[in-house]
Amino acid sequence: MQQRSIRRVAVVGTGTIGMSWAAIFLSRGLEVSASDPAPDAEARLRRFIDDAWPVLARLGPVAATPPHQLLTFCADPETAVSSADFVQESAPEREAVKAAVLARIDAVLAPDIVIASSSSGLLISKLQASCRHPERCVIGHPFNPPHLIPLVEVVGGAQTAPATVERAMAFYAAIGKRPIHIRREVRGHVANRLQAALWREAVHLVAAGVASVADVDTAISEGPGLRWALMGPHLTFHLAGGAGGMAHFLEQLGPPLESWWDDLGSPSLTPSVRDALTVGVAAEAGGRDIAALAAERDRFLVDLLALKKSSGS
Amino acid sequence: MQQRSIRRVAVVGTGTIGMSWAAIFLSRGLEVSASDPAPDAEARLRRFIDDAWPVLARLGPVAATPPHQLLTFCADPETAVSSADFVQESAPEREAVKAAVLARIDAVLAPDIVIASSSSGLLISKLQASCRHPERCVIGHPFNPPHLIPLVEVVGGAQTAPATVERAMAFYAAIGKRPIHIRREVRGHVANRLQAALWREAVHLVAAGVASVADVDTAISEGPGLRWALMGPHLTFHLAGGAGGMAHFLEQLGPPLESWWDDLGSPSLTPSVRDALTVGVAAEAGGRDIAALAAERDRFLVDLLALKKSSGS
Repeated sequence: MQQRSIRRVAVVGTGTIGMSWAAIFLSRGLEVSASDPAPDAEARLRRFIDDAWPVLARLGPVAATPPHQLLTFCADPETAVSSADFVQESAPEREAVKAAVLARIDAVLAPDIVIASSSSGLLISKLQASCRHPERCVIGHPFNPPHLIPLVEVVGGAQTAPATVERAMAFYAAIGKRPIHIRREVRGHVANRLQAALWREAVHLVAAGVASVADVDTAISEGPGLRWALMGPHLTFHLAGGAGGMAHFLEQLGPPLESWWDDLGSPSLTPSVRDALTVGVAAEAGGRDIAALAAERDRFLVDLLALKKSSGS
Repeated sequence: MQQRSIRRVAVVGTGTIGMSWAAIFLSRGLEVSASDPAPDAEARLRRFIDDAWPVLARLGPVAATPPHQLLTFCADPETAVSSADFVQESAPEREAVKAAVLARIDAVLAPDIVIASSSSGLLISKLQASCRHPERCVIGHPFNPPHLIPLVEVVGGAQTAPATVERAMAFYAAIGKRPIHIRREVRGHVANRLQAALWREAVHLVAAGVASVADVDTAISEGPGLRWALMGPHLTFHLAGGAGGMAHFLEQLGPPLESWWDDLGSPSLTPSVRDALTVGVAAEAGGRDIAALAAERDRFLVDLLALKKSSGS
């Protein structure tokens, strides 16, 4: 597969994830050609970019070229990808929908162009199956909000060429994201499985009456969540082992941890559990609507990322 | 139970957790009487306090009185608690050891004084069973490092008086911690169960060859871990639901999440898994020893807590 420098990125699907991808690509001075079937998609995308721009500028230098000059909104995916050097697909998270979009793009696109899917949990082996050139298809899964969260999960499927994974990794790293290569495809990739595991126990603790929704959240955001913004769970436990590190940790705390594993819950999202979660989180939000909470989160994330950058961590 | 103002705290056991408790109590101007059977315990405690003091001063005003003037090191737990208004027990995390220490303290202490145990996962119902006054025993579980992490989990046992829980909650809140009341005792309380759930899947993903130790850690610290420093898992998913919040999230993402739950791993800490974790985390640490990593973490936590404070979040 030819190494071609990436100047123009097609963003296929401009919902929450696609809009955010478009903003970060534009901030790096890349041309973006976007498409989305929603009638108000272009206006919504342009408003999102206007809102995201000053936020991105706080995180680091953004392109001198005004973003709207670099952005073309296209009538369909085929037009959007026609002169693209890289494709980021962010269609709705349904296997049939995504597979069909990938096949449409693949049918018209030069075979040396990588098609990355933002899928949060589907297997690329399934999504690439109807493509003529499945070897250039890969998962490039960002985290919400993608213009702020550095992580991108890169996963190849049964037919993905190793060079495709390498190109996607290199591209995401070059635009300042933090890609990780997931070696074996599993449902939910890595980070969503970890989130799902944490949330399963969080739901269990609420469902079993151990703690309120708000208190379970506080147990994370005023507790281990503070450490996880810097270090993942393995390194955190390496430190918990003291001078002996992970080996000592496993010796001392392996047995209690395994006993807690055995005791973890397996809740179901029954109607009454759903009610408890919905009512509990509304109490926790305490009148702050989603827009206010999202603004609070994004302000915090910008400050946190600036802090991590300045401390070199 | 009489409400008595807390001026003197006994810190029984001055290992990693007890030392850190002593530092925070002293920083709030409380007198501390400490005990620990280790031969070098007093010197180690005083060195720890010297190191922690400037860190605590960066987080907020500390007591004007020099900490060593407020600290008395005692030969045994009975002496340490003799004029205490609150007892924080931080003996080794073994049921028999802790139960014996609680019984010794209980035998000599006025019945209106709360005894809080730092136990990270034992049941207070078992620990209090040999006390004459079990009603004043409660879990007050901090998170490492306790002088920095705000969370304290408060759990009553079968014989704990509601007033004991209230007094412990009020005391921790008054010294600037963030206590949560866990309504029903379970092994590992809340935060350690959540950590255990996350780590179980983290271990599974390494053991199954899905990703390296370092990449699993990055998936948290450059991904959802950034959000968890501000918002717990429920509120995070409330936001992921967009304008429809948790109800919409459950409708849209409940089914994939339940399918991921079904697919989560159940690893065992076999010798080969332990090796993979130990080798992997050493590679991730890349030559940084535990002291260097802990210093990095603590610098980051101080900055992060200052950031949360300044943004009012």
